[in-house]
Formats: sequence, C-alpha cells, structure tokens
Amino acid sequence: MQKLEHIGIAVKNLEEANVLYAKLLGREHYKIEEVESEGVRTSFFEVAGLKIELLEATKPESAIAKFVEKRGEGLHHLAFEVQNIQKSIQEKKAQGFVPIKETVSKGADNKLICFLHPKSTGGVLVELCQEIR
Amino acid sequence: MQKLEHIGIAVKNLEEANVLYAKLLGREHYKIEEVESEGVRTSFFEVAGLKIELLEATKPESAIAKFVEKRGEGLHHLAFEVQNIQKSIQEKKAQGFVPIKETVSKGADNKLICFLHPKSTGGVLVELCQEIR
Repeated sequence: MQKLEHIGIAVKNLEEANVLYAKLLGREHYKIEEVESEGVRTSFFEVAGLKIELLEATKPESAIAKFVEKRGEGLHHLAFEVQNIQKSIQEKKAQGFVPIKETVSKGADNKLICFLHPKSTGGVLVELCQEIR
Repeated sequence: MQKLEHIGIAVKNLEEANVLYAKLLGREHYKIEEVESEGVRTSFFEVAGLKIELLEATKPESAIAKFVEKRGEGLHHLAFEVQNIQKSIQEKKAQGFVPIKETVSKGADNKLICFLHPKSTGGVLVELCQEIR
C-alpha cells in the first residue's frame, strides 16, 4: 500500500451530489467518467492531492445501487495505490484477505482495480488500484 | 477545507484491529490515545502523510458503540483540517450544513473538532478539525 489514491462515496444522484460536495469541499469536481462494466457514473474532486470519487449507479444490479439501497448514501470504499496489482492480490490473499473477484477489472481514471471483501478487512471495502501504464 | 487530515474507522476491539490493519497497510500503528470525553480509545496509522484513526468505544453510550451496533465495523468519518474552526463552522452553517453540536470539542491528536451531521452532508460524517496551537 503506497498511498491512499482515493476515497469512494456512494451517492443517489451525481448532479445533486456534485453541487453538495462543491459547497462542502470548497471546489468543483474536475471530471465525470462512466464505467459501464461496473454500472457506475463517477465524478472526481481533488483536495490537496487526494481524490474523492462520487459514485452513482447506472443500473439496478450495480454494487452501488445495492449499497445505497441497504445503507444509504455515504462512505463506500478506500482505494490504495499499488505498484503491481497481481502481486499485491497474491500478497493480500496470503495474509488472509479475500478478493471479491479473482480477476482484475478496469476501473475509472485509467486504473486496474480489485476489491478486498469487507468481511476480511474489518468492514472497510478496500480497493487495490494500479495505474495502467 | 485545506486537506484531509484523517479517516476515522470504527472497530470493536482496538488490539485486534491494530493487528489486522498492520497487515493490511503494511505498517504498525504509531500511537494509541484515549479521549475520555468522547468515550473512545484510538490508534493511528500513517500512510504517505495521511492518518488513519481506528476508534474503539470505551462506554456503551459512546457514538462509536452506537455506530458499531447499528452498522457494524467500518468507515466512520472523514476529518478535514481547517485554519479557524469557529469561522469554518459559521461558513458551513451559512451553506446549509448542520453541526451535530454547537460547541467545539477537544478530540484526539491535539485537535479542536466539530462534526457536521451526515443528514446535511450526503450521508458522510464530516469532522472539521483545527490543530491546537
């Protein structure tokens, strides 16, 4: 885990959330990106080098739709940057952490991503992410 | 909001969580601090300049005890550093955000703190914190 790359926040409506978070954080979002494979539309804010990613579900079977239905809007995941995601997954598995999927996915913001199951990480959904070079 | 000062994570047992997060983050916690007035015992990890604060309840009426009972362990709050907490509270109130208490409290890590109610911040419990000089 090199650094916290971003914090993911689940929202119901991205446009409304962009207005709210712009007020809260004192700055505007700098991009919007849809990740069709994950069923999400995302927007990004930057606060002193840290990214805050708002996630809105684009289909009812999206993990974000299920999360919002079950727990409401709010903090969703922490994403840590790693150099080599395949190696990191193997290391984390050897330590007892459980990947949600065995395969790496393409996430927003030009990243390869893999989530560790919150049951193995003290209730925190942890994303490993590696910049696609 | 100058920067994200720390991320707060609610845990059931601080000693067990310290072991788990040391494995997850690849480093040990660097301090433990009890904040009696808030009914919490905390430990701190540092990842590339960002603090991760684990919070364990020390009494059943603690906000952390209630959170864990209702939602389980996991992401609890985001704390943003501000220069002048009284001024920030007034600004945030004027923007429609709602402080949980009108008065500033003494938090862990030599900070004056104030929480904004998650009902006003899209479900995210937001802490404003100012270093005590």
